[in-house]
Amino acid sequence: MADAAIDTVTSVPVVVVGAGPAGLMLAHLLGRAGVETIAIDTRTRHEIETTQRAGILEADAARDLIETGVSDRILRDGYEHEGVELRFGGRPHRINFKELVGESVWLYPQTDVFIDLADARDRDGGTVHFGIKDTEVLDIATDSPRVRCTATDGMRHEIRARYVVGADGSRSMCRDLVPEDRRVRYAKEYPFAWFGIMTEAPMSAPELVYAHSEHGFALVSQRTETVQRMYFQCDPDESVDTWTDDRIWETLQARVAGEDGFRLKEGPIFEKTVLRFRSFVQEPMRRGSMALAGDAAHTVPPTGARGLNLALHDVKVLAGVLLRALGSEGEAALDDYQPRALQRVWRAQNFSYWMTQLLHTAPGSTPFDLRRQLGELDNVVGTRAGRTYLAEQYTGWPTSTLG
Amino acid sequence: MADAAIDTVTSVPVVVVGAGPAGLMLAHLLGRAGVETIAIDTRTRHEIETTQRAGILEADAARDLIETGVSDRILRDGYEHEGVELRFGGRPHRINFKELVGESVWLYPQTDVFIDLADARDRDGGTVHFGIKDTEVLDIATDSPRVRCTATDGMRHEIRARYVVGADGSRSMCRDLVPEDRRVRYAKEYPFAWFGIMTEAPMSAPELVYAHSEHGFALVSQRTETVQRMYFQCDPDESVDTWTDDRIWETLQARVAGEDGFRLKEGPIFEKTVLRFRSFVQEPMRRGSMALAGDAAHTVPPTGARGLNLALHDVKVLAGVLLRALGSEGEAALDDYQPRALQRVWRAQNFSYWMTQLLHTAPGSTPFDLRRQLGELDNVVGTRAGRTYLAEQYTGWPTSTLG
Repeated sequence: MADAAIDTVTSVPVVVVGAGPAGLMLAHLLGRAGVETIAIDTRTRHEIETTQRAGILEADAARDLIETGVSDRILRDGYEHEGVELRFGGRPHRINFKELVGESVWLYPQTDVFIDLADARDRDGGTVHFGIKDTEVLDIATDSPRVRCTATDGMRHEIRARYVVGADGSRSMCRDLVPEDRRVRYAKEYPFAWFGIMTEAPMSAPELVYAHSEHGFALVSQRTETVQRMYFQCDPDESVDTWTDDRIWETLQARVAGEDGFRLKEGPIFEKTVLRFRSFVQEPMRRGSMALAGDAAHTVPPTGARGLNLALHDVKVLAGVLLRALGSEGEAALDDYQPRALQRVWRAQNFSYWMTQLLHTAPGSTPFDLRRQLGELDNVVGTRAGRTYLAEQYTGWPTSTLG
Repeated sequence: MADAAIDTVTSVPVVVVGAGPAGLMLAHLLGRAGVETIAIDTRTRHEIETTQRAGILEADAARDLIETGVSDRILRDGYEHEGVELRFGGRPHRINFKELVGESVWLYPQTDVFIDLADARDRDGGTVHFGIKDTEVLDIATDSPRVRCTATDGMRHEIRARYVVGADGSRSMCRDLVPEDRRVRYAKEYPFAWFGIMTEAPMSAPELVYAHSEHGFALVSQRTETVQRMYFQCDPDESVDTWTDDRIWETLQARVAGEDGFRLKEGPIFEKTVLRFRSFVQEPMRRGSMALAGDAAHTVPPTGARGLNLALHDVKVLAGVLLRALGSEGEAALDDYQPRALQRVWRAQNFSYWMTQLLHTAPGSTPFDLRRQLGELDNVVGTRAGRTYLAEQYTGWPTSTLG
């Protein structure tokens, strides 16, 4: 697109590509410090608000939403979970986070985090353009990067900035701007996916239930008193159309069945989706004047609920680093971003991988694999150290041990 | 072989097939309680005494050797290790068992455990026949099983017993006596082996060093002040003949190298062996009047040093159960054996598998796998819970948590 086509030119210190939770939280944190941003997203606001996404927030992330003034709605509409249940060998085993590591987590859908952040941006006068098209990110290797995009009204905008943040999710185009010979991509594919449903039913359990069974993994999650979210392990190529409600409930019930007689409370299923997932990290998380944050830089399997929390941790670190870079330190401050973000990224990658391999049945897995998993689950729940090892990873690591 | 060929017939309450550490410790424990045994082994005593085997004993196992009167030589010739070192990312990370779980382990080769047990059998007048041939175990499904074998002098013996114990190691013939339709065999093969050396050199480190490196795993172990045992990961089909001393030292040095400048103390290498390993469990661990113990029932990869300890745990449980069975309870007492032994077996199977996959580089492993391993190692050493999780498995689990 030639320069001739540009209708407006704006300048801000930071332009944020991607207005999901990571991008908006970064814009919010910078805005609080008096730094103006423009955030853009190809999706419409409605589209993001109606996409169901994972729903577990670390206590630290919940505190940040409240204490930085995004919203305290989580305290009213969210649910504090002081632990999770691991079900295996037909028995429930509770991991009591509160008692083990003094922390809890919050059930609060990513969708609601987005709604709160988008509302806060409106309230605080932040600029967010949804539904934009034809995004181009230019000159990131220089100190005057630019972003061009077409707004919903067809106008072509150029935004000039000192820094660009790529927070454009797991299909990020920003990460492709790091030249191939300057980047490494780490990835792992899994031979299974999650079949996710939304159902109108009462809660089957007060906290998340991670179920290991010889039939495969299942996860019992919640949304509200009357709407629940559940998942079961399926083939990545599974088609939702072939699954009746009856067949879904039968599958779920079999995977959570146990000697305690536990049964899921059934109801009408109003959404069915197959969620494929993988492990992915791109390094470096920065190139010149551009930094990557959240899913744009790394994605994790959903097991263990690290994705959103990791993204929010990235932007917390990045906001601090950007403020220093925009102050007296200059671009050199950005050198601190990747080392501080990455240590947590790889720990979370491992935790997500570990929880996945601990609970899923891989195609072709042997009776040895199944019994070994049960041995591992016994080791994890069998001692306080094992339970704490899981709890501190699930709740996001003690602050003292990580940057 | 016809009955006509039998030269002698003897009766004892328990006959033990296999006179390695598991078989002899069982015979010793039963002997202390006044129960006579005959133990037999196809190997000569000299053969067993000169085979190098793993050398880490749990504190519980060391205490049992001393307190049941086998020998207290371990206190003079063994080395108490209060921890191990994990090396990764070029840095040492000590796991301090003593501080974390209040236990230590003992460096004391299996060969020495065998020597002490064989000497104790001699001292206590126990019967052990080494170097026997043509072993037949008969009638285990009845209450009058028999074992026939040919002694070194060519005499054919029949030993009649109430119970038979198969402690005949990883190539057990006893376990084959459980009919195929009555048994399950769980197994996992690994795509690597250990290249083990014995060298005349001073100790390179005071405790075991488990080294993760991009070149593969290495383990620095010790024997005495002047003789050391070391291993490095190799191809299962590796031939020791193609390895000069120089090449071996170069390989080992590269795998333990780090920013602390750690170097192995080199010396003449006087033994080179490729150790293949696998994970294996046979269930049930008992059939009628026969029980399986130690490697005959289960083998583990050497990583984590569980094998001998697991065998000694088996026979401790089994001795108690056999004494009850020979007393007023009868054969029903044997029903308690497998459940009590097996919980520890599967935990140990998982621990051995876990330590193996945590530290080795599998052929075809990706850069993701390598970075994830480092993330996992960071998680393990990064918090007290992670270190304790490893320590309590390495030292053999708190007694309170397992039978």
